Amino acid sequence: MPNRRAQLIEQLILHTGELARAGLTPATSSNFSARLDAERCVITVSGRDKGRLTPEDFMDVGMDGTPVEAGRVSSAETLLHTQIYRLRPEAGAVLHTHSLAQTLMSMRHEREGHIEFAGYELLKALRGITTHDTRVRVPVVPNSQDMPALCAAIEPAFAADAFWGYLIAGHGLYAWGRDLAEARRHLDAFEFLLTAEMAKLRFPA
Amino acid sequence: MPNRRAQLIEQLILHTGELARAGLTPATSSNFSARLDAERCVITVSGRDKGRLTPEDFMDVGMDGTPVEAGRVSSAETLLHTQIYRLRPEAGAVLHTHSLAQTLMSMRHEREGHIEFAGYELLKALRGITTHDTRVRVPVVPNSQDMPALCAAIEPAFAADAFWGYLIAGHGLYAWGRDLAEARRHLDAFEFLLTAEMAKLRFPA
Amino acid sequence: MPNRRAQLIEQLILHTGELARAGLTPATSSNFSARLDAERCVITVSGRDKGRLTPEDFMDVGMDGTPVEAGRVSSAETLLHTQIYRLRPEAGAVLHTHSLAQTLMSMRHEREGHIEFAGYELLKALRGITTHDTRVRVPVVPNSQDMPALCAAIEPAFAADAFWGYLIAGHGLYAWGRDLAEARRHLDAFEFLLTAEMAKLRFPA
Amino acid sequence: MPNRRAQLIEQLILHTGELARAGLTPATSSNFSARLDAERCVITVSGRDKGRLTPEDFMDVGMDGTPVEAGRVSSAETLLHTQIYRLRPEAGAVLHTHSLAQTLMSMRHEREGHIEFAGYELLKALRGITTHDTRVRVPVVPNSQDMPALCAAIEPAFAADAFWGYLIAGHGLYAWGRDLAEARRHLDAFEFLLTAEMAKLRFPA
Repeated sequence: MPNRRAQLIEQLILHTGELARAGLTPATSSNFSARLDAERCVITVSGRDKGRLTPEDFMDVGMDGTPVEAGRVSSAETLLHTQIYRLRPEAGAVLHTHSLAQTLMSMRHEREGHIEFAGYELLKALRGITTHDTRVRVPVVPNSQDMPALCAAIEPAFAADAFWGYLIAGHGLYAWGRDLAEARRHLDAFEFLLTAEMAKLRFPA
Repeated sequence: MPNRRAQLIEQLILHTGELARAGLTPATSSNFSARLDAERCVITVSGRDKGRLTPEDFMDVGMDGTPVEAGRVSSAETLLHTQIYRLRPEAGAVLHTHSLAQTLMSMRHEREGHIEFAGYELLKALRGITTHDTRVRVPVVPNSQDMPALCAAIEPAFAADAFWGYLIAGHGLYAWGRDLAEARRHLDAFEFLLTAEMAKLRFPA
Repeated sequence: MPNRRAQLIEQLILHTGELARAGLTPATSSNFSARLDAERCVITVSGRDKGRLTPEDFMDVGMDGTPVEAGRVSSAETLLHTQIYRLRPEAGAVLHTHSLAQTLMSMRHEREGHIEFAGYELLKALRGITTHDTRVRVPVVPNSQDMPALCAAIEPAFAADAFWGYLIAGHGLYAWGRDLAEARRHLDAFEFLLTAEMAKLRFPA
Repeated sequence: MPNRRAQLIEQLILHTGELARAGLTPATSSNFSARLDAERCVITVSGRDKGRLTPEDFMDVGMDGTPVEAGRVSSAETLLHTQIYRLRPEAGAVLHTHSLAQTLMSMRHEREGHIEFAGYELLKALRGITTHDTRVRVPVVPNSQDMPALCAAIEPAFAADAFWGYLIAGHGLYAWGRDLAEARRHLDAFEFLLTAEMAKLRFPA
């Protein structure tokens, strides 16, 4: 188990560094976690530069969001990570980022409550999708500094099948997968699809 | 021959890594191959992160798309690679990517069936083109999950001379060359030209 | 103290290199400083490529902008740095960059005299801001080659609380923080917000 | 002299690699040179990937564009480099790139014959410019595959003072300086200004 924890942290540092260099974690924002077992996950400590993480920048929390070890304070958004682990037993990793496209497209679709992607080959990067000839809706919930309220707002969306991510308006994306590689693939696919829809907004009719 | 195969794989890893870092292979998409001889090519295994390939992520397939060694499964899109090697004996390498400009501009030109580039100095990067004062048409075929159908849809385009690439709508680009360096030069030229036409869409009249 | 000075310079080189590679210091522009004590700061020498700084590219100046050591000439803009250190005793580092979004958005908002950001989660990256549900105004002053005049134009803005940056029209951004990490976080947040507002300009109504 | 030549080539490789990684030399395009003395310059061999140059990818040519050593073929565009060295005795290095902004903005301003930049602080990166409060015109000439004709078309522009670059429509930029660092600063400044003007095209009125 200590080995598995160390390996997960090493992989989280690798992926987080790549996402930081790609501009998805501006101004020390964003947080990242991986499931340790049914009761615990490991998560980034709040406020660190995501391009320079070390193993000391991670802490263990229980699935109710409480730190396993006293004395360290986890991010307020820890509750959004643990909600995903509780409601999606298959979730092995959760990635939360703040890109420009995530911020702007979620603001633009806040009233509608979702953003829909159709006809893209890249939809097949989402587990369970086998053709471009389909429509995928990603929920958008209003932003809030009240984490239990945010959890309650997004909870109904977990009734859906093949649900791998959601947006918080003006804030960013939560994406997950069965393991870290799949969570990253889902995140990259959502980011591509959001960027594509944002580019299409600027095309002439 | 083993040396040549190892060298081709080393070069494929180099180019694939650069294309991954440039954002052309989002979410483990895209695939890449090089011709070994008249009967076989080496191709990337499906679903790997294209920024982290190792020699183990490549396999040999015959020109009918069948794996040379039993037990490994190649990408469904292998048939599109081997079609190019069969119909273009001069083709030494095939690169398939999924950039934003490839995705969006192919969707926009799907009905027209092609996209035309005119007046760009960079057209001279395509083998056989010696002046900017010309027009080059790149075919666009509708996307499909039925690979033999996709092969049939694109086959008529192979009647053309100086044909070094085509687009699949909402999906991406296939580009090739006599060797890997030329395939890469063609890919980079098509990507530049597509990005330029996409930028021009947003200019005022 | 020599150790602290050397460490500050090492950190300035690290951050400056990252900002250079991200395109925020085009054509040897931009300058960067850190406070040494109540009377002195260390600042980049003018005109060097910000992606290749060495410790020799830094010099000490007093809080009136005068070089501590005779014989070296500091940037004309040194006065804008020392003004911040004098008027904001909590300021530990000042970063000045010239990005595209800083240049264009400051030109566009020059007449208005400020640019306002509202509703972004990323506003919380600014020290003292605890919710997205707020408005932050960044002052914009006209550009001038007369540094005392520029200082006088921006001085009234220092009356505000939670004031961590301002724009000079067609020129760039000054951002600061209690230490270098905070100054960088503020700079990255302003750059993100300016880029977001610039992208929104191009959206359809 | 051999030392100076080797140092110039080392610096050219450094700058060329950075420009390649920044996307300014797509598809093996672009060429780069430095003056050796009144009679000769060293220039990149045609058609190499600009991100992977080695000292073998450079050759010496006389100021009439003729190779010093028989058996090697220089780029057709060598004449444009040697014209600059002949007509501008102060020129120490010439950089020619093919960025998206250079390509598109030169096409858009081809009929006008120039593109004008006004009010940018970054104009001060051009040698001889000491204030943002000025206008700088960069000539735009039509593209041609006939190099002597291209030389003749641009020659009148050399009558101007403080002339550090010109555009060829749909093709790219030539920029120079007294040494390589200054040529690079001028190139980066022109690229920034062209990108800024291109972004402004897309803003609402």
